[in-house]
Amino acid sequence: MILVNGRAADSVSAQDRGLAYGDGVFRTLRTEAGQPLWWPDHYAKLAADCAALALDCPDETELHAEVCRVAEAGQGVAKIVLTRGVGARGYALPQSQATTRIVLSAPLPDYAQDTAAVEINARWCTLRLGRQPRLAGIKHLNRLENVLARAEWDDPAIFEGLLCDDSGVVVSGVMSNLLWISHGELFTPDLGLCGVAGVARTRLLRAAGRRGIRTHIDRFPPAAILAADEVMICNSVIGLRRVARLDDKTWPAAGWTETLKTALYEEVD
Amino acid sequence: MILVNGRAADSVSAQDRGLAYGDGVFRTLRTEAGQPLWWPDHYAKLAADCAALALDCPDETELHAEVCRVAEAGQGVAKIVLTRGVGARGYALPQSQATTRIVLSAPLPDYAQDTAAVEINARWCTLRLGRQPRLAGIKHLNRLENVLARAEWDDPAIFEGLLCDDSGVVVSGVMSNLLWISHGELFTPDLGLCGVAGVARTRLLRAAGRRGIRTHIDRFPPAAILAADEVMICNSVIGLRRVARLDDKTWPAAGWTETLKTALYEEVD
Repeated sequence: MILVNGRAADSVSAQDRGLAYGDGVFRTLRTEAGQPLWWPDHYAKLAADCAALALDCPDETELHAEVCRVAEAGQGVAKIVLTRGVGARGYALPQSQATTRIVLSAPLPDYAQDTAAVEINARWCTLRLGRQPRLAGIKHLNRLENVLARAEWDDPAIFEGLLCDDSGVVVSGVMSNLLWISHGELFTPDLGLCGVAGVARTRLLRAAGRRGIRTHIDRFPPAAILAADEVMICNSVIGLRRVARLDDKTWPAAGWTETLKTALYEEVD
Repeated sequence: MILVNGRAADSVSAQDRGLAYGDGVFRTLRTEAGQPLWWPDHYAKLAADCAALALDCPDETELHAEVCRVAEAGQGVAKIVLTRGVGARGYALPQSQATTRIVLSAPLPDYAQDTAAVEINARWCTLRLGRQPRLAGIKHLNRLENVLARAEWDDPAIFEGLLCDDSGVVVSGVMSNLLWISHGELFTPDLGLCGVAGVARTRLLRAAGRRGIRTHIDRFPPAAILAADEVMICNSVIGLRRVARLDDKTWPAAGWTETLKTALYEEVD
């Protein structure tokens, strides 16, 4: 089911700026029994991303109700796309903006089922992310780098590709954030120059703080990953997964993924 | 009038990858008496951009016919958008691609009329373009940098903003390519790391070659522009314009814009 501006529909204007320029933001989230998981975090991120692009963000209650309307009965995935709406030709912002709001659902993919293996295999991508501090961290609709990076492999045994930026530091997975444990401390790349700062990553950083796990958010070389005790990827649909293999490097489980996975799902006021 | 996959329509699927990821390319071109101007150049560029993203490019004859169908009776603008079509969720390329083809027209804007002043005022943008060699030169649908740069001013006396990349070299205008003359030779930025290599720029470079004007395509600092004898911007809709003012710097006409404008419209086998 798809809602466009609150009405059941399957299409948007061919002149929408989301299509013309990728001028918008999105969220992909998990639903359980008709309710969005981690909703306050998702709405907060959506509002922050809208603010960064000077987009009007829809009212939280209205958007929550729409996600519930489209949600699958059991477990599922919901996607929210917000664009700057239909505009005149040209890059200039429209005189009066009317955000286009698309809310849709899909069944939970096999790889995101609770029964899916917690261990995954990854590879390094050859594509290097460009650095753009004005767009970094935002889950915007300009995702051609992700499309090109994901097209680098079609081996179904490879679950995720890891990306560096053009200065050679590690950024993230193609569809996930990256974190690792070394000597009992948590490390994750700084996303001030590129990448998407996902809600699962934010929740894990908060949870680590609650548990007194020291965290480091900085620029790290690929060698930092290879030297880690345990490497993980996360996003709102798959939750947390342990990287058991990265090209030729393998890691045995060290127990951190289970600990952090429990922490990821904690709801704390 | 809008054609979507050859049929009169005003909307596209809400699940089109052009909207979801900006996964596509576009062209904006001028039409005269129902015919696209510089068609062979536009189709060649569209085909090259599609190839760079592994998109299927529609047949030339079919696309030409669609542009003619939508074209205004007198002078106008046509836009062609090609996307990777509707796909399953996720960045991976669909198993079978069906390019979405949108062709639409609009009246020629006032600023593009033959009677519009050939001199324009420009400014430097503060936004710095990120560098991504895998996407550089392509007129793809990931245009948030252009949107953010264009939002830096709303003074109608400023026609264009000039952009540097994050290493400080000059790239282009927000909606145009940039070129200048120094000591009788033509200079334009290399677009191997960012920017869009437009058809008007390609035609001007070819025309300069025909006339024996030496051309330099390289990485240049902003100071190179300020030291130029004549500075110009070009695109397929506005043609060629002389930059008479760039922030506080002004230039008197040196005659090159008229010469090159004539050359731009020459049709040579």
